Amino acid sequence: MSDLVKIYDSTLRDGSQAEGISFSVEDKLMIARRLDDIGIHYIEGGWPNPTNPKDLEFFTRVLEEPFQNARVAAFGSTRRANNPPEDDAILGTLLKAGTEVITIFGKSWTLHVTDTLRIALQENLDLIQDSVAWLKSNGREVVYDAEHFFDGYKADPEYALDTLLSAQEGGADILVLCDTNGGTMPSEVQTILSEVTPKLTVPLGIHTHNDAGMGVANTIVAVELGAVQVQGTINGYGERCGNANLCSVIPNLELKLNKQSLGPDKLKKLMELSRFVSEVANLSHDHRQPYVGESAFAHKGGVHIDAMIKQPASYEHIDARAVGNQSRFLLSEQSGGATIVAKLDKVLPGLDKRHPTVQKLLQKIKQLEHEGYVFEAAEASFEILARRVLGTIRDPFRLIGFRTINRKTPRDTEVEAIVKIQIDDQVYHTVGEGDGPVNALDHALRLALESVYPSLQEVRLEDYKVRVLSSQDGTAAKVRVLIESSDDQRVWNTVGVSENVIEASWIALVDSLSYKLLLDGIITQESPEGVETSLV
Amino acid sequence: MSDLVKIYDSTLRDGSQAEGISFSVEDKLMIARRLDDIGIHYIEGGWPNPTNPKDLEFFTRVLEEPFQNARVAAFGSTRRANNPPEDDAILGTLLKAGTEVITIFGKSWTLHVTDTLRIALQENLDLIQDSVAWLKSNGREVVYDAEHFFDGYKADPEYALDTLLSAQEGGADILVLCDTNGGTMPSEVQTILSEVTPKLTVPLGIHTHNDAGMGVANTIVAVELGAVQVQGTINGYGERCGNANLCSVIPNLELKLNKQSLGPDKLKKLMELSRFVSEVANLSHDHRQPYVGESAFAHKGGVHIDAMIKQPASYEHIDARAVGNQSRFLLSEQSGGATIVAKLDKVLPGLDKRHPTVQKLLQKIKQLEHEGYVFEAAEASFEILARRVLGTIRDPFRLIGFRTINRKTPRDTEVEAIVKIQIDDQVYHTVGEGDGPVNALDHALRLALESVYPSLQEVRLEDYKVRVLSSQDGTAAKVRVLIESSDDQRVWNTVGVSENVIEASWIALVDSLSYKLLLDGIITQESPEGVETSLV
Repeated sequence: MSDLVKIYDSTLRDGSQAEGISFSVEDKLMIARRLDDIGIHYIEGGWPNPTNPKDLEFFTRVLEEPFQNARVAAFGSTRRANNPPEDDAILGTLLKAGTEVITIFGKSWTLHVTDTLRIALQENLDLIQDSVAWLKSNGREVVYDAEHFFDGYKADPEYALDTLLSAQEGGADILVLCDTNGGTMPSEVQTILSEVTPKLTVPLGIHTHNDAGMGVANTIVAVELGAVQVQGTINGYGERCGNANLCSVIPNLELKLNKQSLGPDKLKKLMELSRFVSEVANLSHDHRQPYVGESAFAHKGGVHIDAMIKQPASYEHIDARAVGNQSRFLLSEQSGGATIVAKLDKVLPGLDKRHPTVQKLLQKIKQLEHEGYVFEAAEASFEILARRVLGTIRDPFRLIGFRTINRKTPRDTEVEAIVKIQIDDQVYHTVGEGDGPVNALDHALRLALESVYPSLQEVRLEDYKVRVLSSQDGTAAKVRVLIESSDDQRVWNTVGVSENVIEASWIALVDSLSYKLLLDGIITQESPEGVETSLV
Repeated sequence: MSDLVKIYDSTLRDGSQAEGISFSVEDKLMIARRLDDIGIHYIEGGWPNPTNPKDLEFFTRVLEEPFQNARVAAFGSTRRANNPPEDDAILGTLLKAGTEVITIFGKSWTLHVTDTLRIALQENLDLIQDSVAWLKSNGREVVYDAEHFFDGYKADPEYALDTLLSAQEGGADILVLCDTNGGTMPSEVQTILSEVTPKLTVPLGIHTHNDAGMGVANTIVAVELGAVQVQGTINGYGERCGNANLCSVIPNLELKLNKQSLGPDKLKKLMELSRFVSEVANLSHDHRQPYVGESAFAHKGGVHIDAMIKQPASYEHIDARAVGNQSRFLLSEQSGGATIVAKLDKVLPGLDKRHPTVQKLLQKIKQLEHEGYVFEAAEASFEILARRVLGTIRDPFRLIGFRTINRKTPRDTEVEAIVKIQIDDQVYHTVGEGDGPVNALDHALRLALESVYPSLQEVRLEDYKVRVLSSQDGTAAKVRVLIESSDDQRVWNTVGVSENVIEASWIALVDSLSYKLLLDGIITQESPEGVETSLV
């Protein structure tokens, strides 16, 4: 039995079928790059079909990416009945997608053959075999997904096995057993794999869903019985209750089963990936998620914490750092402090934590976090804040006031922003238009600033996200705005929080432009005497 | 092997150790009543100890409740070293709590005996045995929780077994094997239970945590090997990643293993219980939760939906109603015409799908989805849209124009909205203030409408969500606003999309208020002749 288990990620296909998830082509490309970066072996990009222009565009663009690790797979089904494979539209579109790997699913369950496809049982076997064979003859790596395999096997073991044998006969590179409805128990996976494996020569993979809370368990049981490919999604996103969560499966493979998948170095990036994907999906990150959740190594019970201090293995099954996570003690005031100090050390190394100014900064950060700020995804705002408290940055301008006006009639909408700021002795009074009030404000502010700070012309706003906090307060809820900006060399993130979306955006926008000036060395300043020497 | 598996709920003890959960005594009592009502066999109420007055008060009050099904358990540890049981403060407080059942945990893992308790291995065996014996001699049912049993067994199988034999010797009614750190794999549970069970005469229970995503799986494996008590929590709440989720365990026992636990009638109340506990915990209900999540039987993929219509068992592993849940078809770009028609049928039953007006509506929906609308979470907007195309709704007002003005100075922020609308022949011109422009607009619009439609005063905005689409366009990105509203009887959701967050909010807001008037029968109208007759 090989020790290598290949990871087949379906976040972009099965994951996008989750309620509340809708990825743009840009979102999918960003995720694909991160999946490749962490060493995922296969990325299932979607189902290329003529009625889905988004997925077609994705395949055109993803094939231009210089991936280091991942092979991209297009997903579809076996051919339609009565079509010869070479004339079949589904197989034709799959080939046209141009990927190295093609994954097709076929029916294993007699119920589905007779009631959904409405064809003869033998015909289903034929179309599985010749669909696979046709894709193989076109030089593709072919993954065969046996849909509803476990339910099909329970209903008619012989027929379910025959479908696998047909795919094997057609030349499939791997046969993936799917628990499509997610209702299979681990002991059933064990029994069925033990019966099926000896009858096949092609290696097996596993694809599970979590409808009975068994997605991860069934995957692991299958690997213990010899499966060499696992299919799943980041954060377990997927139709209904989701797919096997790769953020649990991968650490279990590496740390519990001692299998090889991403390797220990890449594994350390898993939590970061998990958070990244939830950000792109605009879903809040599941804090209770095994391994990569913020609470996964958080201790609250007093007994647990006492024991943890005596013996770290007491209440943690692995070292949290192996997956990029960290232990936290929830009741201890120090725990918050330690995290912030660790973050500060990254931005301004060598600070003495006991200095009163640093203590003042810790207080300020705690207060802002309480108000809804998160600095994890906004390190530029964090550095600006730290430097303000430490006195090593000067404000690029003084705000006198701004105003946004949004006029709507049945015929059109007019949006204006007026900004009045002072730089040195000079007052700048500008007006901008835009698609919305924040866009107009962005235009007006830049108009004022760029005459003094021409390098701001290099700043592009790459991303703009709004999250409603305490959303139960209706339209009076607090909002958090995250802005991602870049110039030609760097990318940075800033944050603003307010009950007013325009004001939250303004805060994040001013931080973004200030950070650019900080990077360019334009608004740094010596720290006040006495603080500087004792801080470093 | 008996078919009855008893459910031991630890939501009030282990569950309250979850990050973000803090139950008051009233909260705990409310939950306990609901647990009894659904037929839970044991309710672990907490750890009565003099430093925890909340738990002491709870035990005093819970014992006055006329429970029909549940026995209440007090939780604590074995006695301290050197104390004779009759003088031990821990055991004394447990007895004083007055419960029929007492659960004590003891150490199974040599590491914990030597490094945490810091006593001799034999002394630990002695104090397990005489702690249990003392509680038994006081007439209690005694549950012995073998903490860290699986880790302890892996480190030293003989010693771990000896701790169980000591508890058995002391007279324990049941020995519960705990995977305290939650890192054990199902195959390990299988091996260890197979070795341990034949050596014991007292029945076994299982208590697992979810740190490797195996909480539910390990519980089920243990039951398959003979465990007759399962410990867990509602929604899986608990320290770190939580405990075995009883909302997954119980349906698996009843529907997959054909065990007896709550019985089919009580099982139908499970989703309601799950939502109730998340409400009391003030945590949002996990939509993706197996069995009882809102998404657990929600279908989005077009292929799935087509098949579901032909054959309901196609993509659901159980009948959703068995746990009080229901099937749902989500609208999305992935769903074909069939989904929209199924959805339309719910809202406006009996439509003929081939009618040109229905075809026009399908086109309209697809176009809006392309622009960024999602109707899966906004059924009220969907119904309003359908009725507009079909001509069975009239607009409650005509917009002449609105304006929002947001003024910011270093000292303060001022937000105003001015709305001008016409109802019948009358023009209404109102102004409102607010925390932000949308909040101000909400106030101004209601001011204008409520004089004509007083029932709008009943509308509360419950939730307000903003999602940035194509966020790479920076502050010119499109945004989608989702609003959840309610009156005293119903909850509904509406959606708006625009590059301008104010305009997107306006669209969703107007839909929300219109839907209330639709519910009240105020703006429905007969459909134009010719359409009506041929549509029904």
